[in-house]
Amino acid sequence: MSGSIAKPLVVSLGDPAGIGPELIVDAWARREAERLPPFFVAGGASVLVEAAKTRGIELAVTSVEDPTEAVAAFNQALPILGKVDGDYQPGQPDDDGAGLALGSLEAAAAYVVEGRAAAVVTAPISKDQLARVGFTFPGQTEFVAAVCGAPSDDAVMMLAGPRLRTVPMTVHCALSEVSGRLSTELIVRRSRIVARALRQDFGIVSPHLAICGLNPHAGENGRMGREEIEIIAPAVAALREEGIEVSGPHPADALFAPHAREGYDVAIAMYHDQALIPLKTLDFDQGVNVTLGLPVVRTSPDHGTAFGIAGTGQASASAMIAAIRMAGQMALRREGASTGSTPAE
Amino acid sequence: MSGSIAKPLVVSLGDPAGIGPELIVDAWARREAERLPPFFVAGGASVLVEAAKTRGIELAVTSVEDPTEAVAAFNQALPILGKVDGDYQPGQPDDDGAGLALGSLEAAAAYVVEGRAAAVVTAPISKDQLARVGFTFPGQTEFVAAVCGAPSDDAVMMLAGPRLRTVPMTVHCALSEVSGRLSTELIVRRSRIVARALRQDFGIVSPHLAICGLNPHAGENGRMGREEIEIIAPAVAALREEGIEVSGPHPADALFAPHAREGYDVAIAMYHDQALIPLKTLDFDQGVNVTLGLPVVRTSPDHGTAFGIAGTGQASASAMIAAIRMAGQMALRREGASTGSTPAE
Repeated sequence: MSGSIAKPLVVSLGDPAGIGPELIVDAWARREAERLPPFFVAGGASVLVEAAKTRGIELAVTSVEDPTEAVAAFNQALPILGKVDGDYQPGQPDDDGAGLALGSLEAAAAYVVEGRAAAVVTAPISKDQLARVGFTFPGQTEFVAAVCGAPSDDAVMMLAGPRLRTVPMTVHCALSEVSGRLSTELIVRRSRIVARALRQDFGIVSPHLAICGLNPHAGENGRMGREEIEIIAPAVAALREEGIEVSGPHPADALFAPHAREGYDVAIAMYHDQALIPLKTLDFDQGVNVTLGLPVVRTSPDHGTAFGIAGTGQASASAMIAAIRMAGQMALRREGASTGSTPAE
Repeated sequence: MSGSIAKPLVVSLGDPAGIGPELIVDAWARREAERLPPFFVAGGASVLVEAAKTRGIELAVTSVEDPTEAVAAFNQALPILGKVDGDYQPGQPDDDGAGLALGSLEAAAAYVVEGRAAAVVTAPISKDQLARVGFTFPGQTEFVAAVCGAPSDDAVMMLAGPRLRTVPMTVHCALSEVSGRLSTELIVRRSRIVARALRQDFGIVSPHLAICGLNPHAGENGRMGREEIEIIAPAVAALREEGIEVSGPHPADALFAPHAREGYDVAIAMYHDQALIPLKTLDFDQGVNVTLGLPVVRTSPDHGTAFGIAGTGQASASAMIAAIRMAGQMALRREGASTGSTPAE
């Protein structure tokens, strides 16, 4: 995609005891080779400087007063906006660090919702740690939705790697609860959001959605479960009625083989591991978590804080780099849409 | 592995309307390049000759009276033992074809149980079709177990590809029934069979079993399901007590990434798609279905009859070739064990 965005992205620091800070620094150091869009970090200046040292990266930081300054500054130094900061203690999460992570996340979300940043990329936080300092959301996705004033049901998580995109219809619930949480209405509403986002934010003119079955062999005509007949097939029919290009319910085990993947733009999965197993099997280090359906663009690397390897230099920055690049591309498409120009691939 | 088996393998024809016959012929045609052990087919001479024609393969068949003749004959012609035969009508399953598939399967199973063949490789059948001619077993695995006089619980299905082996603890049931079917005792009994088979039949001196959780993130300490705590972790502990090298319960989504796969010899999955999704994502055309825990060696290509492409030449013989090769290697290890010699890798 050609062109460049007018506004910078904002990146939240993540838990300072995790791998977030070092990955942000690493991404900035590779900004030219990876052709990353300009971004600034919401706070954490001294954490980033110390994280760079443990990773052996030469880092210059520059404090900016306004996001607009970040675009010009980005080539020379990593722009930081905001005074929230703390100690860098990799692998040792504590309440101070959680407070810093939350402060950075709140500031970053505010910049993007106010239109002062083109997109927000969130570095990994620990939900357990954040809960200790008063964070009451199930995750960053729901938090960003709330800051936008959007119902959390509108925020749809997509996992995107270089070879596969998947969207789970249910996420963090026990496997035995999945069937009870599925409904035709849920699948239709979320798939509709996915189709619209693939058109608007990913430039796919007529996206093809492949919808997974829930049961082995997609139930084999009801012999191993009836959810395909009673819930999923009616959703496929309803989406088709709306003009969305959709197929399924497909037996999930065969849907992620190389030749099968050529047939669709996104696989709609019924549960967490049905979406995550194929994605991580194929593209473990490069998965991006994208929030679809919100008025703002938000991405995140699809991994956790990895406290156990923070500060050791072992963590790969590939997913962080992919998350920043994808956020930039999505933001550019939205800018193009609002100014009437069309970004070219 | 060096050495060669004394007895031939037997291959069942599979449904003659499916891709089985052409894959058997294709495997025989590539016997030298693929260094396949000698095998004979239980019946179906004219079906195989016609299947070879549609695939453009030059095939010589030879009728043998006894399995012992097949070893010497194999290089010159595909040995056939038994008179069961029928018409070749690819893509058009009917009761005559199902009867032929069943006759071939029964004969093949008898040869291996009587010790006249070193192993049995079963070509794909259609359970629906076979049920119409009186076959009452859930699948070929249970049928072979019954012919051996073994309880069907002792027959454990392993899926093996070049990069991954998986064993599902539950197979053909609705996803919502999985939790109710799991028990510590089931996981312990089947994992024990797997560990023994990897030692005896695969030559892995101290096999490492990685046991999957059932729920997202392996339940996250009970926050998303309690099966890990109540059922799976006690199984892991019991297996470790017995001296089996075992780990888990692992979050299943990360267990099939390249670096994770280096840490184990087999992944024990809790349900069908948890085992099959990663296997088919990685090695779609090369998956072998191996039955562990029986007194006889049985393998099968991990795909169905594919009536829709039978006779078109599109079907890959890779899985059939892998199934024949694996059966030969397993049989050779068992021969070595019974004669006291040790096959070398």
